[in-house]
Amino acid sequence: MPDSAALAARYRDVRARTEALAEPLAPEDCVVQTMPDISPTKWHLAHVTWFFETFLLRPHLAGYEPLDPRYAFLFNSYYVQAGPRHARDQRGYLSRPTVSEVYAYRAWVDSHMQRLLESDVSPELLAPLLTIGLNHEQQHQELLVTDIKHVFSVNPLRPAYHELPPSPDEAVPAIAWIEIGEGLYEIGHEGDQFCFDNELPRHRHFLERYALADRLVTNAEFQAFMGDGGYEKPELWLSMGWATREQHGWTSPFYWEHRDGKWMTYTLGGMREVDPAEPVCHVSYFEADAYARWSGSRLPTEEEWEVAARSEPIQGTFADAARYHPAPYRRAAGAGFQQIWGDVWEWTRSQYSPYPGYAAAPGALGEYNGKFMANQFVLRGGSCATPQDHIRASYRNFFPPEACWQFTGIRLARDT
Amino acid sequence: MPDSAALAARYRDVRARTEALAEPLAPEDCVVQTMPDISPTKWHLAHVTWFFETFLLRPHLAGYEPLDPRYAFLFNSYYVQAGPRHARDQRGYLSRPTVSEVYAYRAWVDSHMQRLLESDVSPELLAPLLTIGLNHEQQHQELLVTDIKHVFSVNPLRPAYHELPPSPDEAVPAIAWIEIGEGLYEIGHEGDQFCFDNELPRHRHFLERYALADRLVTNAEFQAFMGDGGYEKPELWLSMGWATREQHGWTSPFYWEHRDGKWMTYTLGGMREVDPAEPVCHVSYFEADAYARWSGSRLPTEEEWEVAARSEPIQGTFADAARYHPAPYRRAAGAGFQQIWGDVWEWTRSQYSPYPGYAAAPGALGEYNGKFMANQFVLRGGSCATPQDHIRASYRNFFPPEACWQFTGIRLARDT
Amino acid sequence: MPDSAALAARYRDVRARTEALAEPLAPEDCVVQTMPDISPTKWHLAHVTWFFETFLLRPHLAGYEPLDPRYAFLFNSYYVQAGPRHARDQRGYLSRPTVSEVYAYRAWVDSHMQRLLESDVSPELLAPLLTIGLNHEQQHQELLVTDIKHVFSVNPLRPAYHELPPSPDEAVPAIAWIEIGEGLYEIGHEGDQFCFDNELPRHRHFLERYALADRLVTNAEFQAFMGDGGYEKPELWLSMGWATREQHGWTSPFYWEHRDGKWMTYTLGGMREVDPAEPVCHVSYFEADAYARWSGSRLPTEEEWEVAARSEPIQGTFADAARYHPAPYRRAAGAGFQQIWGDVWEWTRSQYSPYPGYAAAPGALGEYNGKFMANQFVLRGGSCATPQDHIRASYRNFFPPEACWQFTGIRLARDT
Amino acid sequence: MPDSAALAARYRDVRARTEALAEPLAPEDCVVQTMPDISPTKWHLAHVTWFFETFLLRPHLAGYEPLDPRYAFLFNSYYVQAGPRHARDQRGYLSRPTVSEVYAYRAWVDSHMQRLLESDVSPELLAPLLTIGLNHEQQHQELLVTDIKHVFSVNPLRPAYHELPPSPDEAVPAIAWIEIGEGLYEIGHEGDQFCFDNELPRHRHFLERYALADRLVTNAEFQAFMGDGGYEKPELWLSMGWATREQHGWTSPFYWEHRDGKWMTYTLGGMREVDPAEPVCHVSYFEADAYARWSGSRLPTEEEWEVAARSEPIQGTFADAARYHPAPYRRAAGAGFQQIWGDVWEWTRSQYSPYPGYAAAPGALGEYNGKFMANQFVLRGGSCATPQDHIRASYRNFFPPEACWQFTGIRLARDT
Repeated sequence: MPDSAALAARYRDVRARTEALAEPLAPEDCVVQTMPDISPTKWHLAHVTWFFETFLLRPHLAGYEPLDPRYAFLFNSYYVQAGPRHARDQRGYLSRPTVSEVYAYRAWVDSHMQRLLESDVSPELLAPLLTIGLNHEQQHQELLVTDIKHVFSVNPLRPAYHELPPSPDEAVPAIAWIEIGEGLYEIGHEGDQFCFDNELPRHRHFLERYALADRLVTNAEFQAFMGDGGYEKPELWLSMGWATREQHGWTSPFYWEHRDGKWMTYTLGGMREVDPAEPVCHVSYFEADAYARWSGSRLPTEEEWEVAARSEPIQGTFADAARYHPAPYRRAAGAGFQQIWGDVWEWTRSQYSPYPGYAAAPGALGEYNGKFMANQFVLRGGSCATPQDHIRASYRNFFPPEACWQFTGIRLARDT
Repeated sequence: MPDSAALAARYRDVRARTEALAEPLAPEDCVVQTMPDISPTKWHLAHVTWFFETFLLRPHLAGYEPLDPRYAFLFNSYYVQAGPRHARDQRGYLSRPTVSEVYAYRAWVDSHMQRLLESDVSPELLAPLLTIGLNHEQQHQELLVTDIKHVFSVNPLRPAYHELPPSPDEAVPAIAWIEIGEGLYEIGHEGDQFCFDNELPRHRHFLERYALADRLVTNAEFQAFMGDGGYEKPELWLSMGWATREQHGWTSPFYWEHRDGKWMTYTLGGMREVDPAEPVCHVSYFEADAYARWSGSRLPTEEEWEVAARSEPIQGTFADAARYHPAPYRRAAGAGFQQIWGDVWEWTRSQYSPYPGYAAAPGALGEYNGKFMANQFVLRGGSCATPQDHIRASYRNFFPPEACWQFTGIRLARDT
Repeated sequence: MPDSAALAARYRDVRARTEALAEPLAPEDCVVQTMPDISPTKWHLAHVTWFFETFLLRPHLAGYEPLDPRYAFLFNSYYVQAGPRHARDQRGYLSRPTVSEVYAYRAWVDSHMQRLLESDVSPELLAPLLTIGLNHEQQHQELLVTDIKHVFSVNPLRPAYHELPPSPDEAVPAIAWIEIGEGLYEIGHEGDQFCFDNELPRHRHFLERYALADRLVTNAEFQAFMGDGGYEKPELWLSMGWATREQHGWTSPFYWEHRDGKWMTYTLGGMREVDPAEPVCHVSYFEADAYARWSGSRLPTEEEWEVAARSEPIQGTFADAARYHPAPYRRAAGAGFQQIWGDVWEWTRSQYSPYPGYAAAPGALGEYNGKFMANQFVLRGGSCATPQDHIRASYRNFFPPEACWQFTGIRLARDT
Repeated sequence: MPDSAALAARYRDVRARTEALAEPLAPEDCVVQTMPDISPTKWHLAHVTWFFETFLLRPHLAGYEPLDPRYAFLFNSYYVQAGPRHARDQRGYLSRPTVSEVYAYRAWVDSHMQRLLESDVSPELLAPLLTIGLNHEQQHQELLVTDIKHVFSVNPLRPAYHELPPSPDEAVPAIAWIEIGEGLYEIGHEGDQFCFDNELPRHRHFLERYALADRLVTNAEFQAFMGDGGYEKPELWLSMGWATREQHGWTSPFYWEHRDGKWMTYTLGGMREVDPAEPVCHVSYFEADAYARWSGSRLPTEEEWEVAARSEPIQGTFADAARYHPAPYRRAAGAGFQQIWGDVWEWTRSQYSPYPGYAAAPGALGEYNGKFMANQFVLRGGSCATPQDHIRASYRNFFPPEACWQFTGIRLARDT
């Protein structure tokens, strides 16, 4: 159990990191919501603050008075047990509070959090809540990055968020298949460190023998699929995937544009030519699944992924690299599976379901994960927008199969 | 392998049963489509016929000429590899071919099927295709019944399809929980009899110890949930379930209406008072899941269901009873799990996914099952609209979690 | 004032004519509703009957009992003062009452109408109501024809309603412009014969000098507009017209299809090649307006049309010709304006507004016309689906500017 | 014809007034678009600037280089002949250019406009274009005010734009009816001063004798309509009006909220209690028409309004008063018709149509008015957001009948 000083230091670090992410943005950038799934930067900055206010300050800091009681309504996301809330698809309608008012709200909550951590409330009580609050804020750091990417991408000016260095030319070797034997495996989080409730309980799961690709699918490989008519052959797609493709007119990964005979892609560094050595990114589950079928392979289950990944050291292209874009393939010495951490979230064929014996936490925090267990697929491994100290082998991310504005990519699996 | 005469007899039986189901209907009833999910009776009658024409007569009966080549476009459902097709949500726009023209189409195909079965094409080749065609037609028999129920239900006149006898008053004992021990179970179809590709391959799956309710949830029990505000408490619902409930304004199972202080329900015998001893029916996955959470239980996984059901004899309220409505609880002598066959399809918490090692059939028939493996939940056990000889322990039905126009109900499970 | 026997004879004539129109149809044809604007044949047959029941039998025939009291709900169209009604866009969901039950309803009302006309209720009271009821039924005769055309047109089988004889080749002379001088004209209905309330009161309206084309715009002329990119030049269109064109992807008049290098059109006689000498038909106001702008002309106002038409004898291609399709141009001896009656309703640039001093009738019948006076344009002159004895110079038809499933065409005007 | 110095002074005045209106706003306020009909402040600031750049600088200032050529795409509104443009309903997706970049764009164009006015291009050529540009900017001044009102109103914080002084209690006398005799009147703009093309040509129009209310309908009167069930009686409404009311759930004028038993309304000064002596405001045509029918009156035609108003001096509550909210009734000495200028735009029953002999200007500027002549109603007299020197008796504003976010109100008329 960390002591109060360590908690306070950790709190300051995570909070500062969020503000650093928003630093390159103009106030105007922080207001816009370009589709219901994404939130304005301003809202992210305020909502993570509301989380500490709601779950730590209000119940545990004696005499706490909120800066503005109406923020409870404006900045609750989906915790119905925490009270009513503003409509999700209208977050971009709010010009007030302004960005500087939101920073004042952050400062207000930060100073009271410091007071709470210095109070005589026991660290045993605070630490679990603070830890979930900080993990929650890290998740919104990633969303802040993915969401501002969408905001900039729909602007005909295609503004850049930061400087993205050019990539060296890299040769990518053919996929090697690494086999893993059948067995009754233990799946789920183990140990005392923090995890979300959906990673528990650790339980037994039988796996047949399988093989997993040693690296991610590249842009070059995905372009071969496109060149072979992958987006025109319904027999490669799930029925709902094909309907989605037709509805949106998809002919390439999200953010790609065909200009002057070349495939370009919007990155947070602006428009760039598609790099053949980078892992394909911003594909939906439907595209990942169609690609796998076309290639004669399949996507892994989440258990297959977990068994493979947990023996690899957690290193790779994370948000800490401040690249916010997947890196081209480069063999990492000593690792078996390449790119299994970071770069892109890897779609699994597992639909997001409770583990045997799963129980949600009581109260509003129990709404964190369990209530989303329908019509979502599990993704694993983190991305170039994930803080490195946020991820672990049992971590379960989840998105609907049509989602493609996250940094999502493909690792193949095979029956053997 | 059955001989040709046996196949021909089986063919005639199934085809006649379909026509018997349509017999009480006026031509006008056979045209209407009241929502995109359902199809007009006329379309069912023709589509199952198109199936035999497309997969048996065209490839295997020398010199076969279709009655009308345009029917291939009108009556293909979703087999993209079998060619283009009429829009699903516009099946109710087709007044032609008329019902009697559709019967002429059936007669045309029937006579050629007879010729094919009398030909020198080997039964070894024909039997598998014929069997899938007949199982397919049986599935549409069930859909014909569920769909005409919807058609009649939205008509303010609430016409009846048939005479439904009144039910005796029955006392329903409390649920008893039957425990099943942990173990590595074999799941999926076993043996030489026909099954769909999604029931294969038989594979190992580890189950923790669990308990399953010995009977279905009754209307009386579901009304207790309603009386306790079940439809007003978002904390009982999946997030998507609550959004669906709000969007549609659900306050009761589908087909229920509150009139003069009493809950009535539309049945194929017309409007009737809700029978407290009948299993609750026409609930979505979202309602089943919310009910389970409210009751302190959960829904079973499909594997838990299969292990429990396979030791019970297949008997219960099926379409063969010509009741087309679940029957009130009555203890069946000799059975452990009551009502596990027939009455209502039982929602499981398993999202519809491929079994380990699953491979779809090649060609258009491979589109039968595999391409629907996203955003659907598995249901088990058959219903009062399922032909009894169509069901088995490994049979996997699947519908989206919001679907409620099928005969769907609830069996509870518990961790122990 | 007509006597009872004359009224009864007129009643029988109009009612028989409606049934004759439905005679070629199968029961299945009478059920389908292919867009919210149109109604199933069955509904037309019943609704006009409901009108007599509601406005004559219920208030005036002592002891009248309806055949089925629920029909009042099913067959009210939009008369809110006559009670609640079934949703307009769900008329195609009703398989019951069947067609033969609707005919039984017609017979029931007919026999009671005969009894009413033989009763001692004074003809002075009944004649105005009966006359509006018969004019109402004549309007639905036209709608029955236009609506079944839509139903058949969306069916890939493109069934025919009747035999349409081929047209002779006709040469069409250039448009001649007939000038009419400025002046303060009297506009609106004059005399004792029946008219709708929207044709009253007769009132003064000042017209500048203008010229009106002596004939309708032909298909050949409209194809010249198409060939000149008329559907690709937004500057020719009203803003809302262009948006509508883009939304629907219009590139030709409604019911036209380009097949094998030729323009074909669906007619009630089936698919036919577009006849260059026929008046262009099934164009929306937006297309008529764009064509007029392209041609350097404009559409007439309804007053300009009325002043021109009232000196011409009412003769032309009406429903009485049983052609149900406009006829190719052929000069009528003795007439100045050609085709000013029948063939196609002529769009005017007049938005549908009350005449000065207009007052709607009291009660539910006052809802007949006045409540539609927003976002509609006036059409004049009747069509090939209008009974000849239904039309007159002051008759004001009205449809929204995007409507194109009626028999609507173009006569040009010019400032001089 | 004004000289260049006068034009330049007028230009500076109007431009400065626009910026003064935006002065109280934070950058965040200037970005948001809360419904497709409204535009962000930032967009207004840029679009009016684009107008001068497009119609004056590009064609007439030799060597002019735009600050950013991409702005032509971003800030064109609907002039299809001026090139492609950004989607209207996505103006709120643009965080860039920022507000200060937009001000730099304004400065760039202003300095070049000054150079153009000092150049040897003749004032005879420039004056008409400059005048339309300034009138155009004045129209957007009004829209800037009405649009920011909407933006603030949907924010649960209900921020205020400025300080709105409280109103004195005023007694409002009963409506007096002023009669005007029948006659052939001249309608439309007369004289050499600027007007829009839709006010021309001046033409003759016959009017029957009529009476016009001497003042606007008040909030107190409108509340009587509400109290009498005006929003629950479909017989008072146009058919499309009732459908609109049901779709939106209208039960009061726009911006009204019922709180703690009182009717409040959002104003640019924040939430205030509804003042019974103020003219009712933010009513749609449908509500105005229903109110008139309920009161036994009707709305005037635009010609009736024009004949009455043109003898009254142009004085009243305009934008110049910096109130941006209608004022309570106070009798103006010497005037016959009270409040006929300013306060609220007055709905007329006239649908927006071309005057006899109307011709749109050639080129892109011809798109200004004529292409909107469908499904709009004419409003007259200006509002509290209209610059006083922008209005005149022949001025025709127009909005769809469902629009209610403008400052729109009711003056009654009667047949006599």
